[in-house]
Amino acid sequence: MEKNKLKKIIIEIFRKHKLSTNHSEICADAIINAELVGAPTHGLSRLKMYCERIRHKLINPKPKIKIKNISQSVAHINADDSIGFVAADIAIKKAIKNAKKSGIGLVAVKNSGHYGMSGYYAEQAVKKNMIALVFTNAPPAIAPHGAIKSLFGTNPICFGSPTGSNAPFILDTSVSMINRGKIRVASRTNSKIPEGVALDKFGKPTTNAIKALEGVQLPIAGFRGSGLAWMVDILSGVYTGGNHGGKVKDPFDDFSGPQNIGHLFIVMKANLFQSNFKKRIKENIKRIKKLPKLKGLKEILYPGENKLRRYKKNLKSEIKIPENIKEDIRILISSKNF
Amino acid sequence: MEKNKLKKIIIEIFRKHKLSTNHSEICADAIINAELVGAPTHGLSRLKMYCERIRHKLINPKPKIKIKNISQSVAHINADDSIGFVAADIAIKKAIKNAKKSGIGLVAVKNSGHYGMSGYYAEQAVKKNMIALVFTNAPPAIAPHGAIKSLFGTNPICFGSPTGSNAPFILDTSVSMINRGKIRVASRTNSKIPEGVALDKFGKPTTNAIKALEGVQLPIAGFRGSGLAWMVDILSGVYTGGNHGGKVKDPFDDFSGPQNIGHLFIVMKANLFQSNFKKRIKENIKRIKKLPKLKGLKEILYPGENKLRRYKKNLKSEIKIPENIKEDIRILISSKNF
Repeated sequence: MEKNKLKKIIIEIFRKHKLSTNHSEICADAIINAELVGAPTHGLSRLKMYCERIRHKLINPKPKIKIKNISQSVAHINADDSIGFVAADIAIKKAIKNAKKSGIGLVAVKNSGHYGMSGYYAEQAVKKNMIALVFTNAPPAIAPHGAIKSLFGTNPICFGSPTGSNAPFILDTSVSMINRGKIRVASRTNSKIPEGVALDKFGKPTTNAIKALEGVQLPIAGFRGSGLAWMVDILSGVYTGGNHGGKVKDPFDDFSGPQNIGHLFIVMKANLFQSNFKKRIKENIKRIKKLPKLKGLKEILYPGENKLRRYKKNLKSEIKIPENIKEDIRILISSKNF
Repeated sequence: MEKNKLKKIIIEIFRKHKLSTNHSEICADAIINAELVGAPTHGLSRLKMYCERIRHKLINPKPKIKIKNISQSVAHINADDSIGFVAADIAIKKAIKNAKKSGIGLVAVKNSGHYGMSGYYAEQAVKKNMIALVFTNAPPAIAPHGAIKSLFGTNPICFGSPTGSNAPFILDTSVSMINRGKIRVASRTNSKIPEGVALDKFGKPTTNAIKALEGVQLPIAGFRGSGLAWMVDILSGVYTGGNHGGKVKDPFDDFSGPQNIGHLFIVMKANLFQSNFKKRIKENIKRIKKLPKLKGLKEILYPGENKLRRYKKNLKSEIKIPENIKEDIRILISSKNF
């Protein structure tokens, strides 16, 4: 579907679900961005879920979002069970504003929900010549090191920086060895999953996808990745006032209450310490790209570079929508006003 | 050797190398702490190297450390080629002070050197009821994803948080799969190193320690760990004014100039957003400790918990010093004043 047509449709769907036009547009932009960068798991595939949570009164379509200014640099946002996109949009803008004033902006958010991709918000800061660290927690997906039950979310670590070129440096990495989606696909096609990415329900390493689905996914790098996932849970959950310690609800199948996800945004002016930051990072990237490479590899890419290429390529053509999601959209758009 | 006796000796050695008594004491405390927490690679084994770099005028024993206040929260420190311990000590104290005032303290350091363990500085913030993120870069040790030459340092990611108990949460994790020291030991004992931790000089995966020493160490989790190492290089090197992109010199064998390592300290009040932070994190840790465990595992530990146990145990006995380091100390202490 053509991008602008799709945007109008998404806006209409959210408007039907009582979101303001402004909030609907924020959501539509984030969802379409996820499709364009090649992350459909964070795009249209969640549209039905968001609407269902609104209908179940677990996402508040008319949130009274409260911003508490704590200092020139720091603010705390109570998102009032807003859809995550809207809370995160307000938060990153506030963090950028505070960083402009004082060099650094720190904004914590509680009572929020799934906000799509962390990198999308980091990019907004990078466009204003700022460095960003973005943390969010998520429903249980991986087992802490030593445990045989999931508790941490995929808890991404996200870092963005200007590069002096069009493609920002955007690291947006989950601390899980494998996506649950990939295990599901392997279970359907009867293929094995890699070693060391999952345990069966007895805590034994397995390459059998079905057994892995009954068991748990593992964090990257054993205790190191487990520690990083724990750090993200503390920063985005414990610290902000959000849910934490395995209490963030799965948005797709747990309708027992709002998610209360927490986010933390740290934004810093890129030229705060070195006025020639852009020149310095250009030099940094150049040195790394010039290194001798693995056989067959043409180019060393920095995080975010490939994503921009996909975005630019996808921008030229229509957005492909799988049949089941087209059906979701048809139902959502033709349903009565909520 | 008894702890206080050893401290006096280290202070005397640094005094002989023109450091002030105050700076000598800061260094002695950090070195002894590394021994007590069971990280001898960051302790006495580096004493001779520090002194050699002072004699070669690559570490400045009488640095004129300049602190530039940028805002209520932000400061930039030019360490004037100080020994890393001293620069980091000033920086973390400044970051704590700024966080007390405004909620968050951001301090960047350039022209510094190896400062021992990041966790040691994070602990100082935690003792003041603060959360800390500490970044430093280091000499080339691991290859960026896709490259067959080392460039990133072991670039630790360090995060500290109060826990409401005596043992702080201190994650201080390198992004390298294996320590170079471990490969060296394996090469001497003719034993294999694990799969997936190193490449030979042609870029082929190897479990042969000798070939690995000629080749490169790999980051944790492939492109993910490589991205994290790159993030740390940007935050602590590019951003601060320190060396970066593989230009940090190896302190043991590169005497062609000062290291110019950069550090970045981000310190935030733990109860900035939630006055009951300690209660919340206690609950978080309790939930994770209660999870069903791998067979044979008694307890799930959080990062830093084991370290404190080692520290307390080691505090009861004398510090064991290997013969070669005893010899270093004898030479350093009996050498003429520098």
